[in-house]
Amino acid sequence: MIITLTTDFGPGAYVAAMKGVILDLDPDARIVDIDHGVGAQDVRQGAYVMYSAAPWFPFAVHVGVVDPGVGTERRAIAIACEGAMFVGPDNGLLVPAAEAFGIKEVRHITNREYTLRRASYTFHGRDIFAPVAAHLSKGVKMRELGPAIEDYAKLDFGTPQADGAGVRGEVLTVDRFGNVITNIPRAVVSERWRFNQEFDVSIGEFEIRVRLLRTYGEARDGEILGTMSSSGFLEIAKRDGDAAVTLGAAPRAPVAIRPAHP
Amino acid sequence: MIITLTTDFGPGAYVAAMKGVILDLDPDARIVDIDHGVGAQDVRQGAYVMYSAAPWFPFAVHVGVVDPGVGTERRAIAIACEGAMFVGPDNGLLVPAAEAFGIKEVRHITNREYTLRRASYTFHGRDIFAPVAAHLSKGVKMRELGPAIEDYAKLDFGTPQADGAGVRGEVLTVDRFGNVITNIPRAVVSERWRFNQEFDVSIGEFEIRVRLLRTYGEARDGEILGTMSSSGFLEIAKRDGDAAVTLGAAPRAPVAIRPAHP
Amino acid sequence: MIITLTTDFGPGAYVAAMKGVILDLDPDARIVDIDHGVGAQDVRQGAYVMYSAAPWFPFAVHVGVVDPGVGTERRAIAIACEGAMFVGPDNGLLVPAAEAFGIKEVRHITNREYTLRRASYTFHGRDIFAPVAAHLSKGVKMRELGPAIEDYAKLDFGTPQADGAGVRGEVLTVDRFGNVITNIPRAVVSERWRFNQEFDVSIGEFEIRVRLLRTYGEARDGEILGTMSSSGFLEIAKRDGDAAVTLGAAPRAPVAIRPAHP
Repeated sequence: MIITLTTDFGPGAYVAAMKGVILDLDPDARIVDIDHGVGAQDVRQGAYVMYSAAPWFPFAVHVGVVDPGVGTERRAIAIACEGAMFVGPDNGLLVPAAEAFGIKEVRHITNREYTLRRASYTFHGRDIFAPVAAHLSKGVKMRELGPAIEDYAKLDFGTPQADGAGVRGEVLTVDRFGNVITNIPRAVVSERWRFNQEFDVSIGEFEIRVRLLRTYGEARDGEILGTMSSSGFLEIAKRDGDAAVTLGAAPRAPVAIRPAHP
Repeated sequence: MIITLTTDFGPGAYVAAMKGVILDLDPDARIVDIDHGVGAQDVRQGAYVMYSAAPWFPFAVHVGVVDPGVGTERRAIAIACEGAMFVGPDNGLLVPAAEAFGIKEVRHITNREYTLRRASYTFHGRDIFAPVAAHLSKGVKMRELGPAIEDYAKLDFGTPQADGAGVRGEVLTVDRFGNVITNIPRAVVSERWRFNQEFDVSIGEFEIRVRLLRTYGEARDGEILGTMSSSGFLEIAKRDGDAAVTLGAAPRAPVAIRPAHP
Repeated sequence: MIITLTTDFGPGAYVAAMKGVILDLDPDARIVDIDHGVGAQDVRQGAYVMYSAAPWFPFAVHVGVVDPGVGTERRAIAIACEGAMFVGPDNGLLVPAAEAFGIKEVRHITNREYTLRRASYTFHGRDIFAPVAAHLSKGVKMRELGPAIEDYAKLDFGTPQADGAGVRGEVLTVDRFGNVITNIPRAVVSERWRFNQEFDVSIGEFEIRVRLLRTYGEARDGEILGTMSSSGFLEIAKRDGDAAVTLGAAPRAPVAIRPAHP
């Protein structure tokens, strides 16, 4: 089975140790790295990465490790969905991706039979999440991991407020190219604007009029534009440039879009 | 079959989505990352990376995505070669690597049967190139992808000019260690100089006398040297240092090499 | 068989060429990247990375390429251990990891039958180490590679000095999060301190009193703490911060730990 990995470890020996543990338990696992460059302990960004990538995989076990609470009382969980399973810390990291599939049940991982014998206090990715994922990949049932729970930590990307004056949301994340991904979904945009129309966007202190374009390539050099991100949210980008730097945009900054008034 | 990936996406969810699409269509594909750190939209650097790596693979489908024109009229193409296939944008990216194998035919990808249903305007790597590569890997014939074309975009690394006074070429790329790779091929160097001989090299404004050495290890600490890159071009390197920074050398800067006159 | 790769090449075409060579010789090899971000020519850091990751793999061939002496007289070696094989340069890189498994024999690789025909002077990772690893993976015997040697280069992480006043060691490496890994092993710490006890640590010019904690999560925001690294050494970390920057700690800096006197 496919096992994907998303962490804030950076590529290196920590991730490799997780792979070794997986391959030891399930030599046939197909391991795919989603991203190990999630900002250190940035659970929200990790959640967005998993949410963006997981839907493109055929049935897989998705392991997420962005885990500021490792070694504390926070629980380890596994989530069964239609079409996917998720394993990681109970801090919301797995939730947006799992909800997109449809959550069937959430289990608190308590059965030590499926974790490494001597789980460390600092590296549950290797000692708990990796071996549990390998066991799930090999056919262990969810119910064998531990009790079902309902009170798992929730995390969402927020619901933009829409009224006659426009839509107010926030910056969800900034990608490697400086594209600013907002939490305003495609449907909210497309019922108000068509491609090639202009609208006014304010991000933090900055306000600018932009065109809604299908693709960066339609913009002029250096133009700031609105487009739909490949994950289905309104994105503010700069042709051949870094929109986040230009706009001083950071995650959680408020975003408002309004019709362009002449 | 092996499917290699070269992009300017950086490692992360974009690349992972391509892998998910491939594995959904061809669960047996062996995916190998060549490089996702190509400079943003630097088609020429991407072409060099593919040119350097592809010859070392047994028969494979090589996917390249450095694609400033995504969503515009630029075509998607597939190239059949002796010993390899290539899939990507029609902007020259695939051409030097494909020419090194010998191009048999180039197809304009028009058949929507082999791409994702709802191709986005911004992410053809996931929606067109990845699924086409997976279909080729599974045995779909080139001719099923679309019409053969002859007017595909060309790209080459330039042909150095040689005369009695020396050889004039340019900087092809700079690698992670600051080694300066020129477009002057091994044959041109070896008919003029032998190992351990000196020659004068000018790069941009900088001029320096260097020895042609087999390997960095033969140089003194901090010495700037000439050597043959593993891809077969003259390389200017600095022992235990960054030659590109020392020489202020950037891609496309003119390079001239001349016999060392006392 | 599993073949792991640890290099200072950075991800990219150099690593990809090694993978192509391996897959050409052994199409069934399972290649796992351990780390390609080892500091350029930092043999000691590479040795630590291999030492940290290799024990977590089921039987594998571990290839290491941090190789400032490439092209000089330094030998290429292969090491047979209980539970693993290692291939790389004879500069100590492979030794701490191999010793952790238990070294059975070390071979000087001289048999050109198992390397690429035209080995370059600058890229033995591709031309010698990768093909040798693939041949070992396919069942070639160690003794076929070349003569057994005893005088291979040694490398260790140093032995801390302990006396009544405390323990003196050094900084082994600094990880991506700025955690300072010392060469003081768990046993030396645990016979002197229990969790939640305080001790005084000096690193270079810096002296600070810290608590020995099981996990970062037990520390207060910004607190500097002692903990046991996942590789089994005393680690000085900063909760939600970069301990190496705060302490000005670099590899080889002296470290002393002493009982906390009131």
